[in-house]
Amino acid sequence: MTRQIHVCLLDMPTVSHNNYGLWAHPSNRHADYKSLEFWLDVARLLERGLFDGLFFADVLGIAEGFGGGPQTALREGAHVPSHDPLLLISAMASVTRHLAFAATVSTTYEPPFALARRMSTLDHLTKGRIGWNVVTSYLPTAAANFGFAAEMEHDARYERAEEYMEVCYKLWESSWADDAVLADRAGQIYTDPAKVRPIDHSGPFFSVRGPHLAEPSPQRTPVIFQAGSSGRGAAFAARHAEGVFVGGYTYDGLASFVAELRAKAAVAGRHPRQLKTFVHAHVLTAPSDALAKAKLADFNRWSRAEGYIAHRFGAGLDLARHPPERRLEDIIAEGGPGSAHMARYPHRADATVGDIIQEIGQLESKRFFVAGTPVEVADTLEAWCERYDLDGFLLAQHTTPGTAADFIDLIVPELQKRGRYRRAYAPDETFRERLLGKGQTGLPRGHPGHAWRQHRPI
Amino acid sequence: MTRQIHVCLLDMPTVSHNNYGLWAHPSNRHADYKSLEFWLDVARLLERGLFDGLFFADVLGIAEGFGGGPQTALREGAHVPSHDPLLLISAMASVTRHLAFAATVSTTYEPPFALARRMSTLDHLTKGRIGWNVVTSYLPTAAANFGFAAEMEHDARYERAEEYMEVCYKLWESSWADDAVLADRAGQIYTDPAKVRPIDHSGPFFSVRGPHLAEPSPQRTPVIFQAGSSGRGAAFAARHAEGVFVGGYTYDGLASFVAELRAKAAVAGRHPRQLKTFVHAHVLTAPSDALAKAKLADFNRWSRAEGYIAHRFGAGLDLARHPPERRLEDIIAEGGPGSAHMARYPHRADATVGDIIQEIGQLESKRFFVAGTPVEVADTLEAWCERYDLDGFLLAQHTTPGTAADFIDLIVPELQKRGRYRRAYAPDETFRERLLGKGQTGLPRGHPGHAWRQHRPI
Repeated sequence: MTRQIHVCLLDMPTVSHNNYGLWAHPSNRHADYKSLEFWLDVARLLERGLFDGLFFADVLGIAEGFGGGPQTALREGAHVPSHDPLLLISAMASVTRHLAFAATVSTTYEPPFALARRMSTLDHLTKGRIGWNVVTSYLPTAAANFGFAAEMEHDARYERAEEYMEVCYKLWESSWADDAVLADRAGQIYTDPAKVRPIDHSGPFFSVRGPHLAEPSPQRTPVIFQAGSSGRGAAFAARHAEGVFVGGYTYDGLASFVAELRAKAAVAGRHPRQLKTFVHAHVLTAPSDALAKAKLADFNRWSRAEGYIAHRFGAGLDLARHPPERRLEDIIAEGGPGSAHMARYPHRADATVGDIIQEIGQLESKRFFVAGTPVEVADTLEAWCERYDLDGFLLAQHTTPGTAADFIDLIVPELQKRGRYRRAYAPDETFRERLLGKGQTGLPRGHPGHAWRQHRPI
Repeated sequence: MTRQIHVCLLDMPTVSHNNYGLWAHPSNRHADYKSLEFWLDVARLLERGLFDGLFFADVLGIAEGFGGGPQTALREGAHVPSHDPLLLISAMASVTRHLAFAATVSTTYEPPFALARRMSTLDHLTKGRIGWNVVTSYLPTAAANFGFAAEMEHDARYERAEEYMEVCYKLWESSWADDAVLADRAGQIYTDPAKVRPIDHSGPFFSVRGPHLAEPSPQRTPVIFQAGSSGRGAAFAARHAEGVFVGGYTYDGLASFVAELRAKAAVAGRHPRQLKTFVHAHVLTAPSDALAKAKLADFNRWSRAEGYIAHRFGAGLDLARHPPERRLEDIIAEGGPGSAHMARYPHRADATVGDIIQEIGQLESKRFFVAGTPVEVADTLEAWCERYDLDGFLLAQHTTPGTAADFIDLIVPELQKRGRYRRAYAPDETFRERLLGKGQTGLPRGHPGHAWRQHRPI
């Protein structure tokens, strides 16, 4: 049986995300990110296109990747100004019945008790259509917004994240029994107190008593996403992630990275196919090859390198301070600000500063970029899934609603013809069931969160 | 000219709030608090009734006010289970055009940088229909959920809250100039970087660099609400609050308290009438006096004292540990857990534990309770406004949608007849304009947040 391809739209409540300069294209509505109606339209469109979900990125500081200050990101609308993505979800859920919503929330800056209730709230309101993209944050400017002198060291962030997950699992999985809520009107008892327990968590980073404030939601634990490209990140993903973003900025070794990730998950006691692998895909399509090429040329005229640079080098490595002929690898080797972060995202070995500035703004320079007819795009998507053992794509947008509308009108029918894309949503399906199959509403056996079920009050 | 009476519905995303036992009444839908459709219906109803807004309470721990544990609150559904109120607002905003939304968020447990972006996000999405009820939290169980061994001392919480407000004002009022956003498509410049500045806040409690991540929202600073009953709380309210909850549990001295509050605001440089005073009103009405009495008797049969006790004594004074003949004043004088908190909410001087348990569950024992025909209720509301210099009411609910529907169908027309209640919303009005008058979208001169405008980049 051919495997279904999972597709989420990648978005962020900001002016520009993942494509810079294009916000100003006459067909692009994304500068309306402040308007509720804009988001309702996006949600309706994606549900019409039978997308798995809408996936929200987020950052808590400004990427100062070009010129050593916020000016480039501000000028380009590159992730700034931005809004809190969690606050959009109930509105979009109210005009959809099936579309899932995943949002990025950092474990570094906000307390787990509050985050756990937020996720439970949304899981209830959406009837189980919620996912959480766990990030540990990497921007020094975010650290400065939350009272830290510097960004916490990468591995320390992951140690903290590991304990953060444990606190959340305890709240979601172990604090309330399945039958704790009686809602007994005749007896006037809402909850049976014997079926609710504090979690009494005490660890190096967190001390949380509980009980959880929310009653058990459809999925209890939201579907966990994570981008595990570093060694520590991959270990975290192999343990916790149900959807994992692979790929970074290179194809090199991706197939073996995915194989190792699944192997690590198996060693950790999980079913390796219960990790769904995703990459960011940059897709541009039109009914004919000539039209697709013309669209690419048009978009490239609007595209601007500066926003890409500010974003990708946001951890602090400032290209503007180096001459164009300098090789990136040499700058990284020097070990200045942001170089440790960039070392984890390999670039072409011989790329100079000048090369990067020249290439980065061209749409076709992105990994997992494809432009062509629906048949060509579908061929490519299928080939990627095959070659790298991918389960799906986060669709990056060039324009809104253009990119998603084209995908829905042109690519989806082609994928459906090939048996690779659903023809209808399953009724009353949670997000986790959509990824793992009917009946798998809660965490599956083998997942570290699943183990906390045994501590539920009897 | 007779002053308009402002009316907000008081609610909380939980089973029972402010009235206990009544969740089980056959006409009460409030146990559906988990459903999005429930909240959309509430929002539509309130907009039909031309309410000023919907006001959300919140707590971050379980009130252990009876029996020394969470069992009473759990059994009664008294503020637990609960959801994060901020996450409901975008959905309700999407089915209304005028209704405002105020939500309670504590300054004690979550970082100001994140809260400031949340409020800006909602102010944008709702086009200026947002208020923030500033609380410092008082529940020891909330402290334990956020890693604090004990609740911070009352006055220290207010010192921290004072600095928290300063951080927020800097982010909202001083970080972005009015004309920072160019959204210049031809020039491909979204924001003029010269018009955005970091806030570089550094104080005893917080260190926040900025810039703010959100562009200026319609109101910039949400309408600030606060319940200032303690000395320190009243000082805070006189400085910051635009809507202030007065009254506590007694009428004694309320008129002079309000007069002093306005005088303090004037000393602080504010217009004393720009503080809008509200009390929680418990209103029960029916077309005839006999029907109102019958409804009261019916509701009292469902009402249960335990939930009230768990809530009101949630700071830790446990009535269950004292004999019924013991006087509350004597228990408070002993200075055990929760007694400092209870000392700020005076009860009848000679009330014994037994008296309280017997009286507290009766609806008519509440301050600002009225049951009667629409004419009687309107007379009473007007008299309260007169006697205590009140600007409006937060309507506590006995049943949902019953209480609000009765108010809208029976009381509103009577108040309209008397020129005390709007006959239509003003078009495109922000929440602050609704309270302070057309044109007053931002903070008025004299408010401590207003002063930060002068630091905006030129």
